[in-house]
Amino acid sequence: MTLDSIHSPADLKKLSRDELPALADELRQFVLDSVSQTGGHLSSNLGTVELSIALHYVFDTPADRIVWDVGHQSYPHKILTGRREQMKTLRQFDGLAGFPRRSESEYDAFGTGHSSTSISAAMGMARAFQTLGEHQVAVAVIGDSAMTGGMAFEAMNNAGVYDDLPLVVILNDNDMSISPAVGALNRHLARLLSGNIYSATKKGIDSVLSIAPPLREFAKRLEDHAKGMVSPSTIFQEFGFNYFGPIDGHDLDALVPMLQNVRRLAIEGRGPQFLHVVTRKGQGYELAEADPVLYHGPSKFNPDEGVKKPTAPANKTFTQVFGEWLCDMANADPLLIGITPAMREGSGLVEFEKQFPNRYYDVGIAEQHAVTFAAGMACEGMKPVVAIYSTFLQRAYDQLIHDVAIQDLPILFALDRAGLVGADGATHAGSYDIAFLRCIPNMLIMTPSDEAECRDLLTTAYHQNHPSAVRYPRGAGVGATPSKELRTVPFGKAELRRKSSAASGQRIAILAFGTLLYPALEVGEQLNATVANMRFVKPLDVELLKTLAQDHDYFVTIEDGVIQGGAGSACLEALAAMGLNRPLLQLGLPDSFIEHGDYKLLMANCGLNAEGILKSIHERFSAVLSVNWAAIGK
Amino acid sequence: MTLDSIHSPADLKKLSRDELPALADELRQFVLDSVSQTGGHLSSNLGTVELSIALHYVFDTPADRIVWDVGHQSYPHKILTGRREQMKTLRQFDGLAGFPRRSESEYDAFGTGHSSTSISAAMGMARAFQTLGEHQVAVAVIGDSAMTGGMAFEAMNNAGVYDDLPLVVILNDNDMSISPAVGALNRHLARLLSGNIYSATKKGIDSVLSIAPPLREFAKRLEDHAKGMVSPSTIFQEFGFNYFGPIDGHDLDALVPMLQNVRRLAIEGRGPQFLHVVTRKGQGYELAEADPVLYHGPSKFNPDEGVKKPTAPANKTFTQVFGEWLCDMANADPLLIGITPAMREGSGLVEFEKQFPNRYYDVGIAEQHAVTFAAGMACEGMKPVVAIYSTFLQRAYDQLIHDVAIQDLPILFALDRAGLVGADGATHAGSYDIAFLRCIPNMLIMTPSDEAECRDLLTTAYHQNHPSAVRYPRGAGVGATPSKELRTVPFGKAELRRKSSAASGQRIAILAFGTLLYPALEVGEQLNATVANMRFVKPLDVELLKTLAQDHDYFVTIEDGVIQGGAGSACLEALAAMGLNRPLLQLGLPDSFIEHGDYKLLMANCGLNAEGILKSIHERFSAVLSVNWAAIGK
Repeated sequence: MTLDSIHSPADLKKLSRDELPALADELRQFVLDSVSQTGGHLSSNLGTVELSIALHYVFDTPADRIVWDVGHQSYPHKILTGRREQMKTLRQFDGLAGFPRRSESEYDAFGTGHSSTSISAAMGMARAFQTLGEHQVAVAVIGDSAMTGGMAFEAMNNAGVYDDLPLVVILNDNDMSISPAVGALNRHLARLLSGNIYSATKKGIDSVLSIAPPLREFAKRLEDHAKGMVSPSTIFQEFGFNYFGPIDGHDLDALVPMLQNVRRLAIEGRGPQFLHVVTRKGQGYELAEADPVLYHGPSKFNPDEGVKKPTAPANKTFTQVFGEWLCDMANADPLLIGITPAMREGSGLVEFEKQFPNRYYDVGIAEQHAVTFAAGMACEGMKPVVAIYSTFLQRAYDQLIHDVAIQDLPILFALDRAGLVGADGATHAGSYDIAFLRCIPNMLIMTPSDEAECRDLLTTAYHQNHPSAVRYPRGAGVGATPSKELRTVPFGKAELRRKSSAASGQRIAILAFGTLLYPALEVGEQLNATVANMRFVKPLDVELLKTLAQDHDYFVTIEDGVIQGGAGSACLEALAAMGLNRPLLQLGLPDSFIEHGDYKLLMANCGLNAEGILKSIHERFSAVLSVNWAAIGK
Repeated sequence: MTLDSIHSPADLKKLSRDELPALADELRQFVLDSVSQTGGHLSSNLGTVELSIALHYVFDTPADRIVWDVGHQSYPHKILTGRREQMKTLRQFDGLAGFPRRSESEYDAFGTGHSSTSISAAMGMARAFQTLGEHQVAVAVIGDSAMTGGMAFEAMNNAGVYDDLPLVVILNDNDMSISPAVGALNRHLARLLSGNIYSATKKGIDSVLSIAPPLREFAKRLEDHAKGMVSPSTIFQEFGFNYFGPIDGHDLDALVPMLQNVRRLAIEGRGPQFLHVVTRKGQGYELAEADPVLYHGPSKFNPDEGVKKPTAPANKTFTQVFGEWLCDMANADPLLIGITPAMREGSGLVEFEKQFPNRYYDVGIAEQHAVTFAAGMACEGMKPVVAIYSTFLQRAYDQLIHDVAIQDLPILFALDRAGLVGADGATHAGSYDIAFLRCIPNMLIMTPSDEAECRDLLTTAYHQNHPSAVRYPRGAGVGATPSKELRTVPFGKAELRRKSSAASGQRIAILAFGTLLYPALEVGEQLNATVANMRFVKPLDVELLKTLAQDHDYFVTIEDGVIQGGAGSACLEALAAMGLNRPLLQLGLPDSFIEHGDYKLLMANCGLNAEGILKSIHERFSAVLSVNWAAIGK
């Protein structure tokens, strides 16, 4: 096996070009075998095998920087840069990350995870090289869907200004994001593919267009046209990039010389280069080619048999509960509109799109636009539901404040993947939403404790006609069966789930936000504590706090978000405002980034399971609570 | 005066087209007279006089919606829609807002203030019209600089998909944002102006490019070219819009028929229309034409004499203190880079650009790109300082988390306009930054109390080599003269400014964050309270809290940010974590949006001056503190 001899790009560069296709076959097989054993992203990585080889063959990595946009397509890159053996630890606790991480390798020039950041980052590096007088090149590898994110355009617009910028942008055009690519840019790319596109030097075009008077320009352009130079122009050229392509991203004989060409131009100060590469997701593995969505991010599977769709339905996920609710609510209210920024599958909108194609909007990877588009809709009386991961709402924070909350528009944010997300790691954690939403006036925030309550809180939030967010975690909860009805719960009211019968001076009240209610109830039994399912972070059930403060001596708040500014802090603020000072223990996520790993393990590490909660309460209150700690294992 | 008879667009529509230019002259004079008496935005509004008349003359407002991007150019629109008399209350408390506000008029279809939101909002409205079967048109009026914001591109990309969308985008191209326009888009526009551009029907282009085989396409395009149809193509056509222009935005004889044309096409289901209008900021007022930056947002002035630059320098603003620090620090450290998203003047970077042109970056109205570009720079060893208004950092929140904080990169955010901003109102308030930054791991947050400390904290933050934010308000503080040196203060340590000598059981400690330290000191004198200048929100000086808790019975926290999740909450969290329960009164901005008005008046209304602080403490603690309240006027 040639692959076994590749411990770094230096080893790769020792190969002749003839040897590369065979290496690609081995690498592809390794990716398939590896991902089928660990789970992870597959289709995208099968698509970048040749591109990864060609990049490290041609570019002087790690001195030249490669920034992988989103980064879930970086497994071949990881394998080629000394991490082949570690691939079996992928996305596991203390193992390799599923995305590039600067802390993991000097070859991971920039950490990614969210979309559309690569051109900005690579441009920053390229300008730094120029400032420092270094002869290095920065490369951004970006998918066609990530190109629809506004910040990619901001970066293109800015990069095009620097005529000598050592920047290469590689558009990895696979016409297939997680959801189908949408938008005008996608049509533009399709048009480029249907024509015969050639490279054009930017300076050539500029001089043609700006100097020549109209008539002479006409003649000149006909001439250029005949040479095939500007037929048709691309928006990337309009942005000041040299455009090359499209070329076959699985053809190493095309890739290697073209990359040599663009690297040479970039390092010679010929300005930003744009290479349009066409690849196929799932390339080389028939099952993935046929259904790249199914093979986007599979769990472990047998490569010979393929991914098996589960026969007996497991517990419904929160995502599924939301998806069903959305269809039911849309049937009940013709004004409901469903909006997703390119996460149809992940957000549970597949069925909604089928049933309500005219009320379904996939706006592309464009969270900012998604939210303000919803605001425009709401101004005209529609009732938009924006289905978005907690972590991606960070990308539309100003739009939420400036366009939604200030105008107090009735938009429901269905925040999926709240709290820790497990294998995707720190970049995708939905740990901050309670804090960053709670400080915004007019916002309502709800934290369902299980699937049934999730449905009821969605209905409750929808009917409020104010900006609202219902946040729920990845995966399934305890398995509470949702009602078929569209029921509401009393607005702003918590639910008392357990009442302490301990003696005065010994009563402890646990205030749980979200799915941690269930371990809290376990602990409540053990400690004979009062347990409240708070349901609402904002408005907080201040009345309940007041009542509990009358006959409770100690408080514990529990949430699966960061402690700083979180729901527990809302309780502290409310108690302080009422002049009710009680010892209060805040449990939640710590003030540090939590890396990838098994969800339960990570939560346990943060002390956010029944055992951990009990331990924290013991540490804090064992001296004052007369509990038989030994009996409960403490 | 014709203008006196215009109480609504219905009155305007009664005029003949011949009467419009005279009306424009009157309206322009009214804008000049009005703004010179109230202060406010001038240059941009002199530029939109004819466009505003033409829009309301042609479109069926308010049924047709006009969304003014940014919105500071909407004064002529306000005057024409029944608010002429109220213009004397502009930007004053309870008066007209300086931006469109839905609550102010049915003609204000969408509230704006921040840039680049208009196309998304108008697209949402247009889709709502289609969904509801209404025959109305939505119009977005957007400046050339606002077009560089990524979300404008996201919206263009998405809108181009809908072939029958009743949307009109009007590009108000004045080649002059507050800072000079930068970027490739701007060059593209300049090229369009230099050429002969004609309108092209989108369907025509599509059929040519997608159906015809290469050879036939070639012939066909030559033919089209000869007809002037596609010469040269614009990026707006690439996005699926019908492009018209450029036309003279001060020529009503060009504007009115062209708007009639695009409205007809839009309402007939011919898809999104794009009209490129060229205007001049300051048009018709020679002094503003000559110096549109000076007349961008002047205070009151005499129109005959023009704006007078202040002769005797007033107290330095925080912005000036930052600008001087940046130059000094750049002299001391060659790795320092200064970055602004299109706010060179507002952020105090004019002198820095002059002294360090190669280390100065104005990236356009592109906050997301600004932050991730800085992150790329920091990865290569540079030390970026991102100068940004607190309110605009909301637009790069995910980039701050995902690209800066997770990677723990040494970037200093100089957050100007923190807290309330006065006349610009709710859209521009920097009230949330403490809460939304405090929940992010690795972030450091500092709140200087005066100008001298601002400089010292900037130096301190810069040397930390972690993500950090120094937040300071608009305008000047108490006038503390900054040192000439680049001094640091002890990291993470508060400063005890006054020590209470009250009896045990009567001691109150006031913890002040930021410039409210000074009224807090006044109150501290009156109440014989301890007063701490906290300086650091994160890391908080927990040791000081612990010490103070030993001999203080009551706490008060004061900040010019929202209470929810703010610096006071950080104190509550810290005290709770230490098991130190003390009555604590949190003072800060309330959980509601604060509209425009005089800064001091607004702060007084929020109880955030010495009198208000004293009043709040009296209300909360008068029963337990044995202060001679009568002696201090309570």
